[in-house]
Amino acid sequence: MRVSRLAAVVALGIACQPSTPPSSEVTRPRAQVTTAETFDAKQVPPYTGAHDAAYAFIDANLRAHVENLRRWVRQPSISAQNNGIQRMAELVRDDLIALGFKEAELVPTTGHPGVWGYYDAGAEKTLAVYMMYDVQPVEPTGWSVDAFEGALVDRPLGKVLMARGATNQKAPERAFLNALEAIIRTQGKLPVNLMVVAEGEEELGSPHFNEVIDKYEARLKTASGVFFPFNSQEPDGDVGMFMGVKGILAFEMEARGGPHGGPVKSEIHGSYKVITDSPVLRLTQAIASLTSPDGNTILVPRYYDAIRAPSDEEQQLTNGMLPQWVAQDSASRAGMGIEQWIDSMSARDALIEYLFSTTMNVDGIWSGYSGPGMKTILPHVATAKLDSRLVPDQDPDSALALIRAHLDAKGFTDVTLRKLSGYPPAQSSVSAPLVRAAIGTYHKYGFPPSVAPRLAGSAPYYVFTKRLGLPMVAGGIGHGSGAHGPDEYMVIEPKSGSRVAGLAAIEKFYVDLLYALSAAR
Amino acid sequence: MRVSRLAAVVALGIACQPSTPPSSEVTRPRAQVTTAETFDAKQVPPYTGAHDAAYAFIDANLRAHVENLRRWVRQPSISAQNNGIQRMAELVRDDLIALGFKEAELVPTTGHPGVWGYYDAGAEKTLAVYMMYDVQPVEPTGWSVDAFEGALVDRPLGKVLMARGATNQKAPERAFLNALEAIIRTQGKLPVNLMVVAEGEEELGSPHFNEVIDKYEARLKTASGVFFPFNSQEPDGDVGMFMGVKGILAFEMEARGGPHGGPVKSEIHGSYKVITDSPVLRLTQAIASLTSPDGNTILVPRYYDAIRAPSDEEQQLTNGMLPQWVAQDSASRAGMGIEQWIDSMSARDALIEYLFSTTMNVDGIWSGYSGPGMKTILPHVATAKLDSRLVPDQDPDSALALIRAHLDAKGFTDVTLRKLSGYPPAQSSVSAPLVRAAIGTYHKYGFPPSVAPRLAGSAPYYVFTKRLGLPMVAGGIGHGSGAHGPDEYMVIEPKSGSRVAGLAAIEKFYVDLLYALSAAR
Repeated sequence: MRVSRLAAVVALGIACQPSTPPSSEVTRPRAQVTTAETFDAKQVPPYTGAHDAAYAFIDANLRAHVENLRRWVRQPSISAQNNGIQRMAELVRDDLIALGFKEAELVPTTGHPGVWGYYDAGAEKTLAVYMMYDVQPVEPTGWSVDAFEGALVDRPLGKVLMARGATNQKAPERAFLNALEAIIRTQGKLPVNLMVVAEGEEELGSPHFNEVIDKYEARLKTASGVFFPFNSQEPDGDVGMFMGVKGILAFEMEARGGPHGGPVKSEIHGSYKVITDSPVLRLTQAIASLTSPDGNTILVPRYYDAIRAPSDEEQQLTNGMLPQWVAQDSASRAGMGIEQWIDSMSARDALIEYLFSTTMNVDGIWSGYSGPGMKTILPHVATAKLDSRLVPDQDPDSALALIRAHLDAKGFTDVTLRKLSGYPPAQSSVSAPLVRAAIGTYHKYGFPPSVAPRLAGSAPYYVFTKRLGLPMVAGGIGHGSGAHGPDEYMVIEPKSGSRVAGLAAIEKFYVDLLYALSAAR
Repeated sequence: MRVSRLAAVVALGIACQPSTPPSSEVTRPRAQVTTAETFDAKQVPPYTGAHDAAYAFIDANLRAHVENLRRWVRQPSISAQNNGIQRMAELVRDDLIALGFKEAELVPTTGHPGVWGYYDAGAEKTLAVYMMYDVQPVEPTGWSVDAFEGALVDRPLGKVLMARGATNQKAPERAFLNALEAIIRTQGKLPVNLMVVAEGEEELGSPHFNEVIDKYEARLKTASGVFFPFNSQEPDGDVGMFMGVKGILAFEMEARGGPHGGPVKSEIHGSYKVITDSPVLRLTQAIASLTSPDGNTILVPRYYDAIRAPSDEEQQLTNGMLPQWVAQDSASRAGMGIEQWIDSMSARDALIEYLFSTTMNVDGIWSGYSGPGMKTILPHVATAKLDSRLVPDQDPDSALALIRAHLDAKGFTDVTLRKLSGYPPAQSSVSAPLVRAAIGTYHKYGFPPSVAPRLAGSAPYYVFTKRLGLPMVAGGIGHGSGAHGPDEYMVIEPKSGSRVAGLAAIEKFYVDLLYALSAAR
């Protein structure tokens, strides 16, 4: 049994050792994996149930189910630009009503609305389902199709849905609702009660998601766990699960002219630089002060102090995912166009860094003239957007306070920090019944998963794991890619011989997962 | 006589002393003015000629002359965007033909065309006239009127022409042609031969102006000097002259992913920062390495070494302009929205820095996402435009080589430098006949000028001073402002009691200047 196995592992001792310091001020702690014990998902027995009527319904209605996915991605819902948000929220609510949810309503917040839905199956167990209905902005170049056309196109992997939201996250979510439809239409009701909580601000850092939870907190706490429909297959079919996500701190840094110097009201002629302070130079100096020259070690004092060492379970999970990570290292880098990781790291070191380290990243910077040729000006304002991914036990507000203190200590009192969003990391355990039900279902489908201690990405799962105290699983078979970039896609009909699941298999997995959870003890 | 007076000055010794170093690597040399001797333009006798017929023609045709200015500014000619360039060059050529220039032609270059014109007066003396017919791009916000409407609007200073090019430089240039018309129509011909050389790339750093000169070099070398029509009055009527201009080095810095790390082909998800090098962070680090944290001392080794100490003449000119500079210091800063100069400098120190120091300025920087909200990406490319103003005896290519060597030494071999343009500074002497003629004409009009050793701005006058060996004067009465910014204007009809010249007086000044030069020995 997984729990026992994990508990039996001898902790060999975890310590953070400093790497060779790129700066004398702060060294980057490197997490260490010292145990040889390895988590193996194949030790969890496969789910053995079969729900043929629901499977047959899915096969018979596949064309309509594909159209449901296209309907969702065709509706723009760009939270950063407030484009289509209200309409998308209504679409989610209306689809829940159509499925027979007893409660389905928009949840007003001080930002974009949430959506709540409750399906009463009269069952013993209740599953909470998290959804995000917003998407990232669309890149001006790089798309082969209109990002909101809902195009079905042939690609080497097979027929794919190519659209913003095709994998992050609307299409897998709607596929999950298709699975609910198959159960309800063939069995009369679901095997578990469902509480759906959806938000429209995930891509903004979920600034108001807690307002959605406020109203239903007591009810949500009665759930067995939280599920998030997710395309978990790699292109080769392998499945990844993750037991947590990083938190995030997103903020803007801005330098302007002011009493300290520099032009206050508008750009001035560049020749005046000779006696005028430059806000752009101040901003670049302030950003540069945050990291070592290579950009990879954060020089903000005590920034790494809150990071705890990897737990025994996390180390075992890391060992379990290592072979696959190493095998895919070259392909992963090629897919993103990266010739080498930072510090020319080995694949193993990169995995440990990926899982257990924090970041300082510049998402964008802008000031002055960026057109053709030259415009010799001294801009009066310069702005950058930054984000920092947070690992346990970092906290966004503490991190921001450390950055502010660092800038002040370095004399950058003229550089403004504006918090855009922030939330802490989240962590679940592989021993939770929901997690074991998911692993067993993957096993049934021939995909005993690689289970990561966490993703390097961020999601507001702390609301579930910290606030509600529930385990959280993001999962499902199926494959997609291109989240946050051009040509985002999800495979609908894989080419012959592919291990990637098509939409029918994806929905059958969701059917089984609900039954597996209803039976889990 | 000015020459004797300057020669008689006792050199008290000039030395560059380092200021308190903001960095231990390089200290900024501060030019020193140690002499008390002062240049005084009132020592140059006023011009005493009178050309009443030409003056009367100007008064009688003022409305048409204003329309000539409006015609020029209404034609867009944005060199950086290749907007209206060809049409504007043709307009200049056609106006020269209409005035009776024996030669008037476009001069093809590998960039925008130049314009050449020759007026044969059969005179003993020849004056070369430099013109730029291009303008800066237009700011998206901040304009009270359409920048190419040629609007005449009432402002506190009087009726002004408000348009891109209203003072930099098309309107004063066309006013000069109006003056030529007045002489030719009343006297039959000009008192001097004229060689007009115009370019359409001044705002780009004049990358191909030498190609314009190539064809006429031998002829141009026979001229007595080069004149550039210029609104030289401050709002209070005081006139400034300058004996030189700074050179410039304009370049782009760019960081991209590559074999050294970072994403090569497109932005990637920001969570991968944890194991991926960031081109934006590299660019900000590289830019930050160029200066001290306050952005005001260039840390590129040997960057200041080529700067020579101020000459005796330059020191005397500096002393001459100091009282006016100090008196206007507060108003100058208020006009640009600057609360204090760098290092909280006194007005006197700021003047010396302004005249004799070089710069490192960021004109623009851009990378990644700059829209509302957040887009958590790791951009694959980051770019900045920079410029450095050069003082004698700096050289743009040497400066660029020093920057490259510095970046390489600091490990920024992954950061690309792309030269956009560059030319050295230019210097003339107050003892040149053309300069004395201009000072005498100012004196006649009641504006004995403040004569600066140089402007902090840049112009390609090295072509005249270094290549052709000619003195160069930019001058004229009249007032304008807003060059390179919104609401650029030139006063056409000053309010009653103003010391600023209106268009009629501006043109009469140009008439007198040509006669004063023809008589100068």
